[in-house]
Amino acid sequence: MTRSFYEREKGLLIVISGPSGAGKGTICKELLKRQKNLEISVSATTRDPRNGEIEGKNYCFINKESFLDMIGNNEFLEYAKVYDNYYGTPKKRVLEKMEQGIDVILEIDIQGASQVRANYPEGIYIFIVPPSLKELKKRITDRGTENQDQLDKRMNCAYEEIRNATKYSYIVINDTVSVAANQVSAIITAEKCRSERLESKIEEILGR
Amino acid sequence: MTRSFYEREKGLLIVISGPSGAGKGTICKELLKRQKNLEISVSATTRDPRNGEIEGKNYCFINKESFLDMIGNNEFLEYAKVYDNYYGTPKKRVLEKMEQGIDVILEIDIQGASQVRANYPEGIYIFIVPPSLKELKKRITDRGTENQDQLDKRMNCAYEEIRNATKYSYIVINDTVSVAANQVSAIITAEKCRSERLESKIEEILGR
Repeated sequence: MTRSFYEREKGLLIVISGPSGAGKGTICKELLKRQKNLEISVSATTRDPRNGEIEGKNYCFINKESFLDMIGNNEFLEYAKVYDNYYGTPKKRVLEKMEQGIDVILEIDIQGASQVRANYPEGIYIFIVPPSLKELKKRITDRGTENQDQLDKRMNCAYEEIRNATKYSYIVINDTVSVAANQVSAIITAEKCRSERLESKIEEILGR
Repeated sequence: MTRSFYEREKGLLIVISGPSGAGKGTICKELLKRQKNLEISVSATTRDPRNGEIEGKNYCFINKESFLDMIGNNEFLEYAKVYDNYYGTPKKRVLEKMEQGIDVILEIDIQGASQVRANYPEGIYIFIVPPSLKELKKRITDRGTENQDQLDKRMNCAYEEIRNATKYSYIVINDTVSVAANQVSAIITAEKCRSERLESKIEEILGR
């Protein structure tokens, strides 16, 4: 019996995107509490660690030379250069975890998500949106980290990103974190019931 | 703003099939307890009510003439003639409920499901399977309603049906009723997050 990528026993690749302030990080943390066999992928970056950032938790900090080598060896699921620094998702650990039956979440931006989708269309693509632009503005303002100019930029960027939300398979409106986390959790459960993923299980039931 | 069939506000059409003994009925009852705005469609039939069967609950009992009229007027989502009797799902009530935002479950056989799918590909098609053929045989035997010949027929029929399970979008393995009901419930929640169903919600968030 051959086992395909879609096997139930294999973990899912779950890509979560959405504008800054939509609450992706909070939802992911909530998911980790409820869902067993779930891991959030840690990105690699060439930028210096900021105060309090922990290697292997916030990021894997690597030097530019290694990063460029990894690009050359096709070792990233996605990567991008932002100003002078590189950011990316190393393939190896994600694939290993999935092979072990662990679902892996990538919390990445929409450009990164398109790169991943090109290679892994069988991933689960979820876009998190705020209940309204007004609420998004409030959330970003409440953080108090942006000046007016930066806020305007973020809002314009959010508008463009949300306009493209329907390119994702699923949209979760983050009005209340617990409801949104329930929805993401339901999406994961439902995706495991998709018949493409259960072909060999059906063979097993039929005793073939 | 035009509202499409896929609108979140509209109820979903959920088709549940599976071999006799897989536990479709038990799962549906469990779902009704947990899920608000959910209804199970009542079939119409031309056969006589059996002892204890209640009109409008077990079936809508109608005469052959009316049934044939309804077929002529295209008033069924699906129907079939079994020996001398007709069975079918009247369209009107199902569509009215969906219009009101109520999800409607049709618990019908695979022939009925194909008829519905031809007209409503946007429905959610779920196939319930037993964890094994052995367990299915046990469940049917435990009911004590079939003789050996009938049991053999049911088992052959189940084998053929399960072989076609992957034609459905989702497969739920009914090992434990509560787990299976959770999975069906997750499928309904996830389907409501599908981006095709949220296009006008996105427009709303963008204030367009």
